[in-house]
Amino acid sequence: MKFVCNRSTLQNGISVVQKSITGKSSLPILNGILITAAENELTLVGSDIDLSIETKVNAEVYEEGSIVLDSKIFGEIIRKLPNDNIHINTINSNSVEILCQKSRFTLIYMDPLDFPPLPNINENDMFSIPQKILKNMIKSTIFAVAVDETRPILTGVLFEIKNKKLNLVALDGYRLALKSENLDTDNTISAVIPGKTLNEVSKILEEKDNVKITFTPNHILFNINKTKIISRILEGEFIKYNSIIPNEFNLKVTAKRIELLNSIERASLMAQAENTNLIKLNIEDENMIITSNSQLGMVREETSIILQGESLEIAFNSKYLIDVLKTMEEDEIVMDFSSSISPCIIRNKEIDNCIYLVLPVRLSKK
Amino acid sequence: MKFVCNRSTLQNGISVVQKSITGKSSLPILNGILITAAENELTLVGSDIDLSIETKVNAEVYEEGSIVLDSKIFGEIIRKLPNDNIHINTINSNSVEILCQKSRFTLIYMDPLDFPPLPNINENDMFSIPQKILKNMIKSTIFAVAVDETRPILTGVLFEIKNKKLNLVALDGYRLALKSENLDTDNTISAVIPGKTLNEVSKILEEKDNVKITFTPNHILFNINKTKIISRILEGEFIKYNSIIPNEFNLKVTAKRIELLNSIERASLMAQAENTNLIKLNIEDENMIITSNSQLGMVREETSIILQGESLEIAFNSKYLIDVLKTMEEDEIVMDFSSSISPCIIRNKEIDNCIYLVLPVRLSKK
Repeated sequence: MKFVCNRSTLQNGISVVQKSITGKSSLPILNGILITAAENELTLVGSDIDLSIETKVNAEVYEEGSIVLDSKIFGEIIRKLPNDNIHINTINSNSVEILCQKSRFTLIYMDPLDFPPLPNINENDMFSIPQKILKNMIKSTIFAVAVDETRPILTGVLFEIKNKKLNLVALDGYRLALKSENLDTDNTISAVIPGKTLNEVSKILEEKDNVKITFTPNHILFNINKTKIISRILEGEFIKYNSIIPNEFNLKVTAKRIELLNSIERASLMAQAENTNLIKLNIEDENMIITSNSQLGMVREETSIILQGESLEIAFNSKYLIDVLKTMEEDEIVMDFSSSISPCIIRNKEIDNCIYLVLPVRLSKK
Repeated sequence: MKFVCNRSTLQNGISVVQKSITGKSSLPILNGILITAAENELTLVGSDIDLSIETKVNAEVYEEGSIVLDSKIFGEIIRKLPNDNIHINTINSNSVEILCQKSRFTLIYMDPLDFPPLPNINENDMFSIPQKILKNMIKSTIFAVAVDETRPILTGVLFEIKNKKLNLVALDGYRLALKSENLDTDNTISAVIPGKTLNEVSKILEEKDNVKITFTPNHILFNINKTKIISRILEGEFIKYNSIIPNEFNLKVTAKRIELLNSIERASLMAQAENTNLIKLNIEDENMIITSNSQLGMVREETSIILQGESLEIAFNSKYLIDVLKTMEEDEIVMDFSSSISPCIIRNKEIDNCIYLVLPVRLSKK
């Protein structure tokens, strides 16, 4: 194998495939990048089995071939070399030479035949969505996935396609996030993608162009320009989230998002001091009074609202409200409540494309 | 106590004194900030005994008094409040009220009489140096202090005033850093200041104006505008560093600093893979060849130099050379060597105000 590649081109490719390499694998080959040189193109592949990423970069290929190089040291070497052409060629059956200006590295390589093959995916049946929109949908929901692994299905985000819509849903037993966008397809699909995969996908998604998505029974494939991201789909049924979201409410609050967020963040300073995050909301007339107290003292915040319906006293884990209010983008938001023990729904005032649900904290009667 | 203070003014003051509060003290009072309101000025004090910081900020004082507030929660509250005037007043013998727009906090305060008094320092005998220069001197030496505490004196930086010069010296048994600047004083002083104190001092020092320094037998006082920083001086004798620095050499190498730094950083990638950091320098004619190898492979770097004297082969822990080359500022540097087992001296080519010494690694004969 022998090729010449521009340093920054190669480095960009490496940093994309490195997103799938955890460095924690017990299989040494999975700490490596599979590099295949053919037809004036390099194909780089990284994999941790659950998530595999393949990308292509331009190169002048003088001799075709494949090797696997340790991702960390190869990445560091390319990153530290001067921004010039890099010459890479195998010098014997287990070493490769990396030359750039007055630097010469000789690296041991691993056998490309040991590298796990990518799942075979038929790319005929795919749909397309702007990268920017998918990135935003992931950001709007991923914070609500479960962190603990007791119910593995909840560590993923549901991708649901039906009625010409793509819905992303995450929930962890305390709160739920749902974001929807229109999609030009008649398909019906339901698959749960691991949250940590989507974190990496989100880093690769850019502001322009589309991403193409293909589902198989066990995998999802994201095609982004010259990059393919293949993730395992989580096994099991996702919770029927529609049955959790209430439809009828006794009061509706319209509030300014940033003002409310700032008040809740300040109120939660007291609650944090005791690790309870407990804040109380008193909704009455044109004000929401937010209070919290701890051994260190107490806080009272007031924020102007428009209230339709009865007054209410309700308590929350402030973290859940803060997560939602930070993620949302509109200036004005609507909160729907029924009682102090029923979930609260938070949504945009204008665009009906997201629903957030937060369970209240039941206060013991004093 | 009752006063009104602008939020950002108060926040700046808090962030200065917080640099002395570790949050790890077993004395709860040392997690607090002492706030004294008098004569249209607030005095804020933080302390961890070893290091105390006092600063003053403007305020409208309506009722004089003193309280101690938990540094973390008070700091967070002030940071999160809107940028407006903040009204603070005690409401009973153990609570203070913090009001700003529609926010109201009530905080428990601690007894100011429990706060340890600052050491009494006679400020008559002080010398003055531009903040920017002292900041640079600290940065140029502090990286060489010992991290392990087996010889506590080496965890500090020597402040030595003699012959109208201020010398800062740090050493850890493997390398030494010495930076000197002219100082208009006839005093002779030698005191060792804890490295962690100087880290905090360095963060407070700005680009303009002077800092005034006063020594007492046990303390050093830095006066920076409205801020006083008082640090304990380490007990014990510093090593007679002059006797360590050799004066005669067999070869002198002139090199481009950044080019050499980049070569060494790349060479050390291999060495890092095995945690040895071991690199070998072959100095001959117009080239320095830098090599390193590990189980993963090997590297050969070449950098142009001007050599006066014999050729030499010598090995180093690359980290020590990298630390020095990163800290230095001139484009061209000079390295003096005697033999493969004698220390190497690194200094600027032009300005004679710093000396770095690095011990080589003795290679076992093969």
